[in-house]
Amino acid sequence: MRYYPDPSRQLDLSKVNGVIEEAFAEHARGRVQMPPKVYITFREGDFRTMPGYIPSLDIAGVKIVNVHPGNPGIGLPTVMALLVILDIGTGRPVSLLNATDLTDLRTGAGGAVAAKYLSPHRSIRLGVVGSGRQARAQVEAIGRELDILEVKVWSRNEKNAMQFCTQVPDLECSSAPLPEVCECDLLVTTTPSREPLIMDEWIHEGTHINAIGADAPGKEELDPAILRRARVFVDDPAQAVHSGEINVPIQQGLFSEAMIAGTLGEVVIGKKKRNSSSEITVFDSTGLAIQDLAIASLTLGKQEGIDLKFP
Amino acid sequence: MRYYPDPSRQLDLSKVNGVIEEAFAEHARGRVQMPPKVYITFREGDFRTMPGYIPSLDIAGVKIVNVHPGNPGIGLPTVMALLVILDIGTGRPVSLLNATDLTDLRTGAGGAVAAKYLSPHRSIRLGVVGSGRQARAQVEAIGRELDILEVKVWSRNEKNAMQFCTQVPDLECSSAPLPEVCECDLLVTTTPSREPLIMDEWIHEGTHINAIGADAPGKEELDPAILRRARVFVDDPAQAVHSGEINVPIQQGLFSEAMIAGTLGEVVIGKKKRNSSSEITVFDSTGLAIQDLAIASLTLGKQEGIDLKFP
Repeated sequence: MRYYPDPSRQLDLSKVNGVIEEAFAEHARGRVQMPPKVYITFREGDFRTMPGYIPSLDIAGVKIVNVHPGNPGIGLPTVMALLVILDIGTGRPVSLLNATDLTDLRTGAGGAVAAKYLSPHRSIRLGVVGSGRQARAQVEAIGRELDILEVKVWSRNEKNAMQFCTQVPDLECSSAPLPEVCECDLLVTTTPSREPLIMDEWIHEGTHINAIGADAPGKEELDPAILRRARVFVDDPAQAVHSGEINVPIQQGLFSEAMIAGTLGEVVIGKKKRNSSSEITVFDSTGLAIQDLAIASLTLGKQEGIDLKFP
Repeated sequence: MRYYPDPSRQLDLSKVNGVIEEAFAEHARGRVQMPPKVYITFREGDFRTMPGYIPSLDIAGVKIVNVHPGNPGIGLPTVMALLVILDIGTGRPVSLLNATDLTDLRTGAGGAVAAKYLSPHRSIRLGVVGSGRQARAQVEAIGRELDILEVKVWSRNEKNAMQFCTQVPDLECSSAPLPEVCECDLLVTTTPSREPLIMDEWIHEGTHINAIGADAPGKEELDPAILRRARVFVDDPAQAVHSGEINVPIQQGLFSEAMIAGTLGEVVIGKKKRNSSSEITVFDSTGLAIQDLAIASLTLGKQEGIDLKFP
């Protein structure tokens, strides 16, 4: 068994979107195993257990990932992830990965795959809501699929928005108020909000939205009226209903599982699609175990790791 | 984060049954979090993911454990387990334990707790079906709760049964045919059988049975007629229905969830009990994540472990 403390260090980022796209496609073909993630809740946060198996990539394992919003106050990340990879033929744990950075990257890549297939434009004005690690991961991954003409970013703290722009020096980037950020071709929302931040009247026809922030019951970023007039794709229906952008509107009777247009995997394999360039599309991302396994498959064998006796 | 390659080495076995009993009691009081274990299946075996949280022991984490029956042919154990312990306040992974031996011990201790509360006798003749690691763990743990007068053991391979007796040198132990092994006060079944081995007519009134072997859909060791005339206790109803001794009889319409008498935890806290000394009782053990966490709580801080950088 080997431990990899920094598996993203030598990762070939140009290959990440491709392997994530393959994972979604295999999901749509019914060729993966991925039970819905399981939550354990603490007073200060929670953790999720995410097992999965992708036969086409010959990889199986479990990601364990927490969300403790108070952590930055004591110098720790809000989200930390550990990934355990098992040998398929024997069930032996063979690799342990510090998967905190990989989690950011695989979620960003999921947004990039959605943007590639659902954006009606190849050159886009990009709106970004939130200015943290995931905002940056989305912009960097989307930039490998589409030509980003400009970025407008909003953060509750404007200084953070300006700081964000310094992190993407190759892009024309500025801080802006929310309605102006929504004046874009592709909108990415990455906040931990528990009430809608993005109002229906700000979203014009033809926009594609990556709704990334909502990943637990009670979280939502979009006015439910947007979902009702959009074509809503999800990564996984069970997870989205439980904890995605649609979870609160479903609880409120404003949306239903039957209104989901399809999965991103179905879009990738051509079974579902955007119907017109004037339609609004939403990708509701909750994050899949198979995304973690797919990105891990790129890193294994690339570093030495620390050898640990097992069994 | 620290890795413990051999956490059972300095374990105080006299404390194991006690902490496992506490875990079952907390389960019955509704004071633990433990979603049912989740299965991923391979051609050669499977693995199970088992998250849990016991607030009274201040411990939370996930066990990942495989079952690959062909492993001994290539020099590996059939079952290997890794346990990840998270800090409750921050969600940070703090300990990794090679939990293969701990899994044997905590399952044995579960059987001992069942024997302590459900055996009508303090001095017992013990029947053991199967002669592997779990058979030995059951005998050793039960021996700390009850006075074992003699052991009769059956194995498909008689040599293994005789070898088993050499492993418990302090006990009067002999190999015997199945019907004779069942002529006992307390019967323990520990095989991976997929068809009933123990016939109804061999089991007399007042016997307590620890049914340990069935831990996946399709497995069963007992003639369903035994279950129908016994009081059947389970560790966890959801897991037992899915993968315990009762899973096949339920599929066949010979048993139902409503026929479960209660959980072992309810027995421990005095809410349920054996009603008479002539009754047959069965403890259907599937193995709980909280048993793994409870036994791990005894080992943490007792060894140095190997320091691993995280995050």
